[in-house]
Amino acid sequence: MFVVTSFGESHGACVGSLVDGCPAGLELNAGEVQAFLDKRQRNVLGSPRREPDKLEILSGVFEGFTTGAPICLVIWNRDVDSSAYEEIRHVPRPGHADYAARARYGGFNDYRGGGRFSGRITAGFVAAGGVAKAVLGRIGVEVAAHSLSIGRVSVGGEFTIEKVKRAYESPVRCADPEVSAKMVEEIAKAEAEGDSLGGVVEAIATGLPPGVGDPVFESLDSELAKALVSIPAVKAVGFGEGFGASALRGSENNDQFLSVDGKVSARTNRAGGVLGGLSSGMPLVVRVAFKPTPSIKREQRSVDLMSGKEVKIKLQGRFDPCVVPRAVPVVEAMCSIVLADQCIRCGLIPQVLR
Amino acid sequence: MFVVTSFGESHGACVGSLVDGCPAGLELNAGEVQAFLDKRQRNVLGSPRREPDKLEILSGVFEGFTTGAPICLVIWNRDVDSSAYEEIRHVPRPGHADYAARARYGGFNDYRGGGRFSGRITAGFVAAGGVAKAVLGRIGVEVAAHSLSIGRVSVGGEFTIEKVKRAYESPVRCADPEVSAKMVEEIAKAEAEGDSLGGVVEAIATGLPPGVGDPVFESLDSELAKALVSIPAVKAVGFGEGFGASALRGSENNDQFLSVDGKVSARTNRAGGVLGGLSSGMPLVVRVAFKPTPSIKREQRSVDLMSGKEVKIKLQGRFDPCVVPRAVPVVEAMCSIVLADQCIRCGLIPQVLR
Amino acid sequence: MFVVTSFGESHGACVGSLVDGCPAGLELNAGEVQAFLDKRQRNVLGSPRREPDKLEILSGVFEGFTTGAPICLVIWNRDVDSSAYEEIRHVPRPGHADYAARARYGGFNDYRGGGRFSGRITAGFVAAGGVAKAVLGRIGVEVAAHSLSIGRVSVGGEFTIEKVKRAYESPVRCADPEVSAKMVEEIAKAEAEGDSLGGVVEAIATGLPPGVGDPVFESLDSELAKALVSIPAVKAVGFGEGFGASALRGSENNDQFLSVDGKVSARTNRAGGVLGGLSSGMPLVVRVAFKPTPSIKREQRSVDLMSGKEVKIKLQGRFDPCVVPRAVPVVEAMCSIVLADQCIRCGLIPQVLR
Amino acid sequence: MFVVTSFGESHGACVGSLVDGCPAGLELNAGEVQAFLDKRQRNVLGSPRREPDKLEILSGVFEGFTTGAPICLVIWNRDVDSSAYEEIRHVPRPGHADYAARARYGGFNDYRGGGRFSGRITAGFVAAGGVAKAVLGRIGVEVAAHSLSIGRVSVGGEFTIEKVKRAYESPVRCADPEVSAKMVEEIAKAEAEGDSLGGVVEAIATGLPPGVGDPVFESLDSELAKALVSIPAVKAVGFGEGFGASALRGSENNDQFLSVDGKVSARTNRAGGVLGGLSSGMPLVVRVAFKPTPSIKREQRSVDLMSGKEVKIKLQGRFDPCVVPRAVPVVEAMCSIVLADQCIRCGLIPQVLR
Repeated sequence: MFVVTSFGESHGACVGSLVDGCPAGLELNAGEVQAFLDKRQRNVLGSPRREPDKLEILSGVFEGFTTGAPICLVIWNRDVDSSAYEEIRHVPRPGHADYAARARYGGFNDYRGGGRFSGRITAGFVAAGGVAKAVLGRIGVEVAAHSLSIGRVSVGGEFTIEKVKRAYESPVRCADPEVSAKMVEEIAKAEAEGDSLGGVVEAIATGLPPGVGDPVFESLDSELAKALVSIPAVKAVGFGEGFGASALRGSENNDQFLSVDGKVSARTNRAGGVLGGLSSGMPLVVRVAFKPTPSIKREQRSVDLMSGKEVKIKLQGRFDPCVVPRAVPVVEAMCSIVLADQCIRCGLIPQVLR
Repeated sequence: MFVVTSFGESHGACVGSLVDGCPAGLELNAGEVQAFLDKRQRNVLGSPRREPDKLEILSGVFEGFTTGAPICLVIWNRDVDSSAYEEIRHVPRPGHADYAARARYGGFNDYRGGGRFSGRITAGFVAAGGVAKAVLGRIGVEVAAHSLSIGRVSVGGEFTIEKVKRAYESPVRCADPEVSAKMVEEIAKAEAEGDSLGGVVEAIATGLPPGVGDPVFESLDSELAKALVSIPAVKAVGFGEGFGASALRGSENNDQFLSVDGKVSARTNRAGGVLGGLSSGMPLVVRVAFKPTPSIKREQRSVDLMSGKEVKIKLQGRFDPCVVPRAVPVVEAMCSIVLADQCIRCGLIPQVLR
Repeated sequence: MFVVTSFGESHGACVGSLVDGCPAGLELNAGEVQAFLDKRQRNVLGSPRREPDKLEILSGVFEGFTTGAPICLVIWNRDVDSSAYEEIRHVPRPGHADYAARARYGGFNDYRGGGRFSGRITAGFVAAGGVAKAVLGRIGVEVAAHSLSIGRVSVGGEFTIEKVKRAYESPVRCADPEVSAKMVEEIAKAEAEGDSLGGVVEAIATGLPPGVGDPVFESLDSELAKALVSIPAVKAVGFGEGFGASALRGSENNDQFLSVDGKVSARTNRAGGVLGGLSSGMPLVVRVAFKPTPSIKREQRSVDLMSGKEVKIKLQGRFDPCVVPRAVPVVEAMCSIVLADQCIRCGLIPQVLR
Repeated sequence: MFVVTSFGESHGACVGSLVDGCPAGLELNAGEVQAFLDKRQRNVLGSPRREPDKLEILSGVFEGFTTGAPICLVIWNRDVDSSAYEEIRHVPRPGHADYAARARYGGFNDYRGGGRFSGRITAGFVAAGGVAKAVLGRIGVEVAAHSLSIGRVSVGGEFTIEKVKRAYESPVRCADPEVSAKMVEEIAKAEAEGDSLGGVVEAIATGLPPGVGDPVFESLDSELAKALVSIPAVKAVGFGEGFGASALRGSENNDQFLSVDGKVSARTNRAGGVLGGLSSGMPLVVRVAFKPTPSIKREQRSVDLMSGKEVKIKLQGRFDPCVVPRAVPVVEAMCSIVLADQCIRCGLIPQVLR
């Protein structure tokens, strides 16, 4: 029902999203969506590419409220220099989709800046996520994300959603100021060595009533997994204990129920808020692994697809040594999109919001 | 295009799948599909429930070949005793979907044996997966799965698809006979203690050409993640290095290309055969974490939903201390279904197979 | 949301439907659905094939109520004699899909009795329609259909839904007893001459509030048109004045609004209850044209696809000289399925009916 | 596979389409698509609104070829004066969706110029249709449309696709110059009387091989019916003989097969090129009825939704006395979109066009 379609390329005219199925009557504060989009960018450590990323809403909003019609969200591309990509047009970069894309599209894909495979398309996801967050706000569902680890530096402890929300104060989106400083160092070190880092982002959602989702195949966790794995550079997703659950015993992993003021709750939340594809009533907790940025300034080995010969390449251009900080609002957006969709499907959000 | 819909409940008339979009002209050996379905069952360690799980093909196959029409696959339920479930009708079992399902369906869901949330519905997935495997066989794509760990016992080393295929010789579907024996012990120990175990299943697919998939949102890994997380008890999914990739540096994680007899290949396969949502041309490698069976024979705490009071329960009935061995063909089936769909979408498999 | 998938073939094991997205908690009277299915059959004039058409509900219903899980509806085929079809295996029958199906499925389609293209598959539509009618009944929406014309005999006048519902008393489903008798004669005459007839079926739905539907492409009339044209032998669909509207002037065709007890209504209903893809609040009126049964007992010209030579054929077997009377419940069912889906999408029907 | 999503409103920033699933490698001549879009507009008789309707392609095309990525097509709105719509904000216009839309969207819909329900959104359909026509051109499928009737003036005779293509030379898109002149008069007369006209548009497609489509529910004619009924003001659709087929006998309506140079053909084409939901190999022939423009300059009766009182209104503003001439390329576009999609689904068009 709340369906997001993505379009645009890294070095084309724009990137964008089309949001279909957003209820009518939602007061959409363009400034708030823009502010959320800015979180993907305002980053002392990020890629030197510095477009303003100004959002334009082309349709579906009238007099400040959603109309129920499709919302077309566009972020124009500026400050584009594609010259650095000319030399890799026929030499696939290790860790990138270049070679696979060439096979898929017969070489007709826009290779500049990674084209359709660029992390830049996530700007469109964040804009759509901003709309989804506004929808969810109407039923008291909050979503927030933060960096759990960058490279080998990770943060521990318990995270309430309030704490997670404050992570945006850190340039690396880490909720703990001390660990944040170490992560900043870690990135600087990798960059200095011409290398790159990955990391883990965690998202938490509160306010979800129990029973949101479906058993198969459109289950809550299935749809979240699908959306999150669609984010460029994501290699794994886990709910609650995630892979760790596989080494626990049932008696350790089961969340025992309890009754609080006549309402059912649970003593623990190892399930991460999902049971049988449905929300359990506990906070949703999902973790996403990002691989290190494949673009590095070191010499790498590849194949010249025109000659068939092995070659060595050293990438030029502007790239981010670690996408994790910028990925935090992307993960938050993706979770929000799926949750808005699921809540609409389950009838929790009416077609007209008043 | 190759779309599988699931239906049926644990203690209803049947479980089944409807497969739409299977090409016409595929010679469908019912015995082979049945044999694949048997792998989900013929298991010395499994649940004491012992139906024959006989597959019936109700439509879409004529004179031994698929017709291009929807294939309805049914596995009739027999040997059903629902009495043990009467006492938990209003007392949700920890780790199960009972409480969430009640919220979702207003208590109208079939609670017997977990109903729609039971692992039994995966019999339908396996039957559909058997059809998908036959489709993939026509273009030389092979899929196999095995147990990578059960509880804290795990197997190491390199796995070729030939080795993985032999894992079915082991009762716990482990490719290494020694580790297999330890896993058997581990399960026996947990069972003796009234407890349960989880584990990790790995699937490998070979023969996939590069370029199968799409960037977003119907990407190869997104669709795999969605399908795999739909399997009951799955809590995490990772491709290639998975979560481990987040702690590597770009220079460690990138798979350098090389040229072998004029064809592009890669020195390593940390990406697990997926880059940018497309197959990379290397084997697909995906790992799936199963939580321990939530049904255990120990006393657990819950809430009586009629009285609102906390209660203690000790489950009766027949349950498997570890679903991992039986989940191996399920993971294999799910991967096969997604790969068949993606290969059809990309035009690798024609509408009529001759 | 209320999605119906069809499966089965004319001379295979069964025909059936899978209904996904039916709300939980609907009291489903199997006898009522069976009675509706019987209307497709209990017909003095129909095809000599006389199966009992007994409906079996394989899933999704528990203790007399829908569970929210997919409902698998099966009607087993019996009394099947396929021998008459052997001679037309390679000789396409004029007016049938034989030749096109052979091109589509490479000759692997089940040709017996028309296979997947047989009118028999509409039994599955009617069963699903019976469920849809029960859903609609919960919000006071009623759907009924009747024969408007058979061959060149047509009925005139105004039709209330009460009058239309009584049409089932007529063997040809015509609301006017005198015209009904003429239609019976017309069919008898065509049959005696080895020929066949078509006709027009009209469906009316009352109780739909205004605003059900969407502008494009999932509009109320678009989805109705799609579903109705899916019925075998349908060649045209019109809403309200239909093709007649094209010859009217705006001043004649516009339905002027009026206020009745503070509620908006209209003086006329030339729009047939749909404006801009949404329900207008007036009764829905849709007409569907059925071509004459292509199977006739006269000599026809065709081509032997094995030799490439022109041949003459004279069909043997059991066929109905006019499908219109049996198509009436099919049209009613298809409209009900679309309306249930649209009402669920618009939030008029909750996920749990109590 | 070739999926078109529509967005935009009459008086918003733009109207547009997002085309997903277009094969890569299609040489897309922007001038040709623009020329097709111009046919919707360059019309001596049309609405006085005279925007240039300049198409902008925001994504999915690179160096003159499609990339396989979503193609975002935008036509910016200019020359917009919304003042005339202020007085009808709370007074629904007869024959328009105003009242239904208010019910659907709680009054939040953009009412200016009909907003989402305006015929203006068809500019986006035509742009997408231009892409579809280019795709179809690669396999020799041609689509053309013309006016069959306007008001009570209609054209008779046989129509080859060559003749139909020349209809664009007529200002009313009528293939016969004499009838064209009469239609021009008819429109002038209705306009002089402050009234409006409807009409019938016919589309023909040649070059379709037999077997394109599916039995149910995604059949060729079902999908065409759905797309065509989505065009604002369409009230009926018929294939081949359409409603006329209902009054024929089987012996008259069946198209007898014949063999021409070893290829199967038919003596007649009463089926309009569709049998059993599949293309028959004969030209596709479909007719679409447009109701008269609901906006007329005569006094009409409505209800003031704020006071609940009946009122009389006389519309101001710019409107077309007959949309049929401008609808001709829209019908052609819609048919092209559906045919491109169906041909891709059936594997007739590869994922990469070289």
